Amino acid sequence: MNGLPIGVFDSGVGGLTVLRALRAGLPDETFVYLGDTARLPYGTKSPETIARYARQCAGRLVERGIKLLVVACNTASAVAIDDLRAHLPGIPVLGVVEPGAMAAVAASTSGRIAVIGTESTIRGGAYTRAILGRRADATVVGRACPLFVALAEEGWTDGEIPTAVARAYLDDLLTDVDTLVLGCTHFPLLHGVIAAVAGPRLAIVDSAQTTATAVATLLERTGLRAGGAPSAVTVAATPTPEDLARIRLLATDGRDRFARVGSRFLGVDLRPEAVEVVDL
Amino acid sequence: MNGLPIGVFDSGVGGLTVLRALRAGLPDETFVYLGDTARLPYGTKSPETIARYARQCAGRLVERGIKLLVVACNTASAVAIDDLRAHLPGIPVLGVVEPGAMAAVAASTSGRIAVIGTESTIRGGAYTRAILGRRADATVVGRACPLFVALAEEGWTDGEIPTAVARAYLDDLLTDVDTLVLGCTHFPLLHGVIAAVAGPRLAIVDSAQTTATAVATLLERTGLRAGGAPSAVTVAATPTPEDLARIRLLATDGRDRFARVGSRFLGVDLRPEAVEVVDL
Repeated sequence: MNGLPIGVFDSGVGGLTVLRALRAGLPDETFVYLGDTARLPYGTKSPETIARYARQCAGRLVERGIKLLVVACNTASAVAIDDLRAHLPGIPVLGVVEPGAMAAVAASTSGRIAVIGTESTIRGGAYTRAILGRRADATVVGRACPLFVALAEEGWTDGEIPTAVARAYLDDLLTDVDTLVLGCTHFPLLHGVIAAVAGPRLAIVDSAQTTATAVATLLERTGLRAGGAPSAVTVAATPTPEDLARIRLLATDGRDRFARVGSRFLGVDLRPEAVEVVDL
Repeated sequence: MNGLPIGVFDSGVGGLTVLRALRAGLPDETFVYLGDTARLPYGTKSPETIARYARQCAGRLVERGIKLLVVACNTASAVAIDDLRAHLPGIPVLGVVEPGAMAAVAASTSGRIAVIGTESTIRGGAYTRAILGRRADATVVGRACPLFVALAEEGWTDGEIPTAVARAYLDDLLTDVDTLVLGCTHFPLLHGVIAAVAGPRLAIVDSAQTTATAVATLLERTGLRAGGAPSAVTVAATPTPEDLARIRLLATDGRDRFARVGSRFLGVDLRPEAVEVVDL
């Protein structure tokens, strides 16, 4: 069981930032990642449809044999975690929202926290509920930052344009908070620009990084860790091509684009042949 | 028959720029618009799936009674026009690619033409084929400009950020062409910024506008025009709220977002209640 891979799914390539953090923090583990690129985006779909898609993604990963499931998709984490846990009684399931909310509450002194994400994540309010569930007197302000998604996918992650976009989204949002949650798996690619605009006084919570930390803790607690000495979760370093041997990549459509855009998200050059197309 | 509406469909709100041009140019006509928002984007899906979705959209519009069908979606225009014509023998079908390509060939002196669109439109090469089919010695250069889509949906259509993005996409693309085709229904919203970056020496072909002109010509030719004297197609003016009485709007999901973002595309304030949600 401990030798089985960790399963990770997302609606597309965004979750590869979570996989990158997992890979960096858990050097003894292997991974199988599924991007449901044929049916993205999940955010515009109904909760019932999202739950059904999430079950199908999880089911395909379980067929391959996994010991733990990471839902690296904010929309599916917000909508389908309970349903997935009910459907997968033998397998621990972790989303990205809970670890991000926990880290935000831990990081914030004032309890005034900003969350940025896609339109559907912000409108759905999952981070707000999760933060208030841990600190009832917190004040959470949210803002949808869809241009950040487009910038990350385009690979425009520093310089004049991303900085101007970050200012437009963040300048007035951040006047009265001490913590900013990157509530979208695309946003870690813009961490540098966002941090520069936010300034040094703000704590930035990267939900990819906090999810990797939560997975490490869960593996220890459940005794599911793969062999080797326990290792601290480190900041994601640049993966080497050898790391790809530890990672199996599945997508439901478009492996050329998955490889091209995904290379930036995973931080290693992917060839299209490294991506297996599966039908759900 | 002549009193029936013109049917228009798109994968989302983008086609509302085509509807806006149609409405302005054809003041005696009525329209029924379907945005397949539940299943967007089409561009990442297989040709078979796109053709199936297009048949379903067209079928729903035909059920409502239409005299002519406009495919206001570049992806479906490129992939599914022939299939739709075969399935709808009694109804003229027009896409956005052919009118845009015709107008580009008419506008270009040098035969050197640039096309901008979404990644899937540019990769698919439909504009290039349509232009070369009309002028075999043309040189067509294409560039995907996905940030333009995000900017249009966000309503950031002038000022520093859109101008910087337009420069980044266009400066080197436009050095040796005399015509630029806006090959995405989102791009007319950025016409001012694009024209300013392109400079006065370039002809800009707006495929929404050219599609409206082609529809007017087709209505005359087929005798399908609604009552009243023939009217020249004019540049889209700002529609009045009364114009909404001539327009019926359907969407497959998310009428709040459809109304909010669609207001900018159609150029008139839409309330969510004006949007009927249909299931395909």
